[in-house]
Amino acid sequence: MNFFEDMQVGQRRELGSFTFTADGIKKFAAQFDPQRFHLDEEEGRKSLFGGLAASGWHVGSVCMKLLVAHGQRQARDAAARGEEVAVWGPSPGFRDLRWLRPVLAGDSVSYVSEIVSKRTSESRPQWGIVQARHTGTNQRGEPVFSMLATAFVPRREETH
Amino acid sequence: MNFFEDMQVGQRRELGSFTFTADGIKKFAAQFDPQRFHLDEEEGRKSLFGGLAASGWHVGSVCMKLLVAHGQRQARDAAARGEEVAVWGPSPGFRDLRWLRPVLAGDSVSYVSEIVSKRTSESRPQWGIVQARHTGTNQRGEPVFSMLATAFVPRREETH
Repeated sequence: MNFFEDMQVGQRRELGSFTFTADGIKKFAAQFDPQRFHLDEEEGRKSLFGGLAASGWHVGSVCMKLLVAHGQRQARDAAARGEEVAVWGPSPGFRDLRWLRPVLAGDSVSYVSEIVSKRTSESRPQWGIVQARHTGTNQRGEPVFSMLATAFVPRREETH
Repeated sequence: MNFFEDMQVGQRRELGSFTFTADGIKKFAAQFDPQRFHLDEEEGRKSLFGGLAASGWHVGSVCMKLLVAHGQRQARDAAARGEEVAVWGPSPGFRDLRWLRPVLAGDSVSYVSEIVSKRTSESRPQWGIVQARHTGTNQRGEPVFSMLATAFVPRREETH
């Protein structure tokens, strides 16, 4: 994880890709989104999605999973270089989440995060506020997912 | 599920409540959001959350689960009355999702959905577009979650 001062508007992080299997789609849906087109291939084919489709919450949760894994790799690398590791604060939420196209069984989605703005917090001088757009693109290069996330990121000078 | 014509701005649906157990919080986090404060009580206590805290994606996914269950109950009731059941379209996304307070192990969150706007779709006359604010409130009456969702809802007159 980086400190606020290390982050620049326009920086992109490749978060990795994830393949949505029929089994994984059905398991998530059974727990959190048991609509027909998320649970059964034939119902998916008959729906507007045209196939067994992942819940939008599944597509978003996988983005979170890859963001966390990426942050943990960054933290390990920083620690291995003997650098201090930034501990991020909680996220207050996000804006403009869009499910742009269905994610069907067998699709692989690659997630990327790009920093779109950064500013210091007036009320909490030890924190900066960073906005990033996370996007998911399928194996045909079609965008399927987009969200604008806000995070509190620690400032290097204020934490020493 | 209702048709577009049956829905009025200001209508509230009580979706039910859900208790976040320590075990459920850890299971979701292990799959989708393996940060320390979502996986371990002691790490949660040491964090800004002050206790083992549910992933924000878990809090949102449970809202989806209760929305689907509520829609399925409405559909069963309509069918039992011999009425036609509306089949909703996919959601294109949502805006302004906010995690307002931590949801800690043992907390019960009650979810409510209120319709905030409705309009017809010019490009797809068989559909209306409805915006609803879904909110979650804990057992102390404190708001913990809010999101503004958009859904395509079928129009009664156009589907006949």
